[in-house]
Amino acid sequence: MKKFLVVISLLLILSSEVLCQQLQSPNGKLSMTFALKADGTPTYALTYSGKSVIKPSELGLELKNDEKSLLNDFSIVKSETATNDSNWEPVWGEVKSIRNHYNEFAVTLLQKGTDRELIIRFRMFDEGLGFRYEFPSQKNLIYFVIKEERTQFAMAGNHTAFWIAGDYDTQEYNYTTSRLSEIRNLMKGSISPNASQTPFSPTGVQTALMMKTDEGLYINIHEAALINYSCMHLNLDDANLIFQSWLTPDAKGDKGYMQAPSTSPWRTVMVSNDAREILASKMTYDLNEPNKIEDTSWIKPVKYMGVWWEMITGKSTWSYTNDLPSIQIGVTDYSTAKPNGTHGANTANVKKYIDFASLHGFDGVLVEGWNIGWEDWFGHHKDNVFDFVTPYPDFDLPGLRDYAKSKGIKLIMHHETSGSTRNYERHLDKAFQFMKDNNYDAVKTGYVGDILPRGYYHYDQWTVNHYQYVVEKAAQYKIMVNAHEAVRPTGIARTYPNMIGNESARGTEFQAFGGSKPNHVTILPFTRLIGGPMDYTPGILK
Amino acid sequence: MKKFLVVISLLLILSSEVLCQQLQSPNGKLSMTFALKADGTPTYALTYSGKSVIKPSELGLELKNDEKSLLNDFSIVKSETATNDSNWEPVWGEVKSIRNHYNEFAVTLLQKGTDRELIIRFRMFDEGLGFRYEFPSQKNLIYFVIKEERTQFAMAGNHTAFWIAGDYDTQEYNYTTSRLSEIRNLMKGSISPNASQTPFSPTGVQTALMMKTDEGLYINIHEAALINYSCMHLNLDDANLIFQSWLTPDAKGDKGYMQAPSTSPWRTVMVSNDAREILASKMTYDLNEPNKIEDTSWIKPVKYMGVWWEMITGKSTWSYTNDLPSIQIGVTDYSTAKPNGTHGANTANVKKYIDFASLHGFDGVLVEGWNIGWEDWFGHHKDNVFDFVTPYPDFDLPGLRDYAKSKGIKLIMHHETSGSTRNYERHLDKAFQFMKDNNYDAVKTGYVGDILPRGYYHYDQWTVNHYQYVVEKAAQYKIMVNAHEAVRPTGIARTYPNMIGNESARGTEFQAFGGSKPNHVTILPFTRLIGGPMDYTPGILK
Repeated sequence: MKKFLVVISLLLILSSEVLCQQLQSPNGKLSMTFALKADGTPTYALTYSGKSVIKPSELGLELKNDEKSLLNDFSIVKSETATNDSNWEPVWGEVKSIRNHYNEFAVTLLQKGTDRELIIRFRMFDEGLGFRYEFPSQKNLIYFVIKEERTQFAMAGNHTAFWIAGDYDTQEYNYTTSRLSEIRNLMKGSISPNASQTPFSPTGVQTALMMKTDEGLYINIHEAALINYSCMHLNLDDANLIFQSWLTPDAKGDKGYMQAPSTSPWRTVMVSNDAREILASKMTYDLNEPNKIEDTSWIKPVKYMGVWWEMITGKSTWSYTNDLPSIQIGVTDYSTAKPNGTHGANTANVKKYIDFASLHGFDGVLVEGWNIGWEDWFGHHKDNVFDFVTPYPDFDLPGLRDYAKSKGIKLIMHHETSGSTRNYERHLDKAFQFMKDNNYDAVKTGYVGDILPRGYYHYDQWTVNHYQYVVEKAAQYKIMVNAHEAVRPTGIARTYPNMIGNESARGTEFQAFGGSKPNHVTILPFTRLIGGPMDYTPGILK
Repeated sequence: MKKFLVVISLLLILSSEVLCQQLQSPNGKLSMTFALKADGTPTYALTYSGKSVIKPSELGLELKNDEKSLLNDFSIVKSETATNDSNWEPVWGEVKSIRNHYNEFAVTLLQKGTDRELIIRFRMFDEGLGFRYEFPSQKNLIYFVIKEERTQFAMAGNHTAFWIAGDYDTQEYNYTTSRLSEIRNLMKGSISPNASQTPFSPTGVQTALMMKTDEGLYINIHEAALINYSCMHLNLDDANLIFQSWLTPDAKGDKGYMQAPSTSPWRTVMVSNDAREILASKMTYDLNEPNKIEDTSWIKPVKYMGVWWEMITGKSTWSYTNDLPSIQIGVTDYSTAKPNGTHGANTANVKKYIDFASLHGFDGVLVEGWNIGWEDWFGHHKDNVFDFVTPYPDFDLPGLRDYAKSKGIKLIMHHETSGSTRNYERHLDKAFQFMKDNNYDAVKTGYVGDILPRGYYHYDQWTVNHYQYVVEKAAQYKIMVNAHEAVRPTGIARTYPNMIGNESARGTEFQAFGGSKPNHVTILPFTRLIGGPMDYTPGILK
């Protein structure tokens, strides 16, 4: 009997050694346990100072037209650990040097029957856990379509959350502060009107999601390095308080077209009893690839003001004329149109802004409404909406360019795309060259309204690919990009520091649309700013 | 009583004068009657030598989110007639001079309640009728979405038709010859497998549709000038033998995003008791805009042969290596890959083709499989599939370019897009410049497989716009385009004569896929060739 028990214990010890792995943060406070369930489903769990933060949660992906998917029947064929402690210097940011310090554990899983390999890589920082799926080069898994990613985040309590509604097209909602169990009842009221919006679930929320437990522990869920993948939202099973990844679908309802070798973005869970630690964390950047731009001398954050707020408040207009309700770019002749007298981006007005900016220490002046097409740009899902290079008759671009230069001011370009991504890409090289030819080195882009190609969303894989394409092409032209209405950032500015900022949240402009909650800007740093800086566009005058 | 009858007759005459209009062909054989129904629905009817060809058929368009649509409650506010008899010279073609001779009738309709204007313009040639919808500049109709065009073609009998299944993605079916009433039963059997196909109706057929009545009259329905609109199919109400226009939907099911002022393509109905007259007709070209290319000296049809058939038959491959199942354009290193030894587009082989072509009076040699990416190009709905500028290691492009030149042969470029239209557009300028830099002036393009953006079709408005974008950009580079798998042509080569040809039908390659019906090539001229020439790719060796 004794021998038998010894054998059994040995077996148990052996099997748990095979099935479980622990990963600690460098300071030992955070601990992650990876384990396979009996049916081969990979799981992970997270504790902070011994307290459960993420209860055992499943990992995996559901594939389209694939009986097995990548959900279960896995066994561990390899597991590797590593440590990294290095420093890197960002091109810009709050700090001069950033420490990239983590313990890593990567497990290679082999699926029974299909012989497919899946790697899950975990990196544990002092302030949080990051993990991602990796699809290595292999014979049996090359091209596949994701029906849904099935990453769970099982919460250990009915925490207070600072959330906005999950939505395929906008982040411009007020934050609601409530317990997880209250999300469902408060969802409808949290959704205010927007130019383009597609909420998808009564308990779906966006990331970065900030939470606070009753014990005063802060938990933050986001993603890092969203490249060639669909933007992740979190859908709450509020019966069990389990969040599950909910990707943004494309026009056919598919959630990702993948080709191995490749990786998913990192899913990040930050934990601290001090919210400032989450704010100060550079984990999201650390998980991104190092800077890919060789010469970064042209990249510098600037302080700008601009001709835009007066149009938002209705004091002036983006449009030049009221005589032309139907613009055909390249055909419509503006030279004979009667000016409406309210066009904000006129030479004299812009000069005033340049003078003010120069006098008061600004670096740049943004001008919206400088280019033809604003008479019917909005609400028509228009394809050929702007050409990005033709100024209105009353905007003396060369003159203003030179005037600004003489005052030590840079004009900041504006490329409102109206969501028409193919049109923007068709004009992109000419538009960027036009900028260089005219002394512009930074552009604010916008994606107001529903996306074209029609049927696509602001945050699906196809459109996320577009934003990245624009940033990479801008880098070739040494142009900085400040993208509004684009997908919220996920630390990609480490790799492409010319992605100088995004709006991609409810900003100052909403002061003209009824305002935002008084605590709005106190929440944003813990949510929107986790992945990158925000062009909040502050500094308005009534 | 007499007075009463006189008054009534007068009123009837007056009302019929208001509600009816006739249009004759120059030779008087064809006669069209336009009339408004009591409810204000516009209709037309067509007779040939007094015999009914098109019974009174409704016209109009169903709009999305629009209670009224553009279907009825119209009254005539204006009608104008005109005549044209002019000649024009095509840049290339079967004849040196083309006569454009028609009588025209344009009716302006005003819709009660909405105050919207719709113009229907009819042009009657000796061999047929063309008509189109025009949406003039106006206050009450600027942006609208077409749910379905509702143009009817009411047949006067159960004619014999030479048809292929209506399909959003392919024209590569064998023709079926049957009575209209038999289409439904024969539809399923007519649909053979294809790389990309989306049939939509058990009685839907494509245009150009050729028919023959029991009396020996030929009727041909097609469209001309398909620009910025969705490709039209015909759906048969086989209970009543009425064809109705059925446009190709986009990813959301919408059939056209329109902005006034604009026009629909021309719908054409050719009628003759002599089929050769239909063949010889240049009506489709006549209805297109005149040539827009100033200098056309670089545009000339050529006779080419090519490295493609040996791959279709499996004698060689487009791909270069069997070692790389997963290509990442720009990343994958081919220099170390083991050649599969079956790559057709290798320098020595291409030289043989150039020698043969030079010896036997050909102008050009097409080479498929010259560029990286063919290892996994097909069947994966792949986005970044080709770059169009990087040759395989065994294809000495500069050497072959010069060798061809020395032999008086032009190499013909190949741009297989794999349906990935955004990727093609992203590379287009570089790809076209690369061609010019390397002495290429003609490209065969291909769209094999499902279209990207995913959810779109080969013949919807969005993709039709893409083909046109490619042709117009090619013209800027003085490049001729021979587009395979693109929408079938509709006479646009009059306006852009660099659109030197299309395949866009079941061609010679099918001899390797089981063959085509023996009468296939005898039907094609009356169907596929109505809108433009076909690169049938003849001249294969077993």
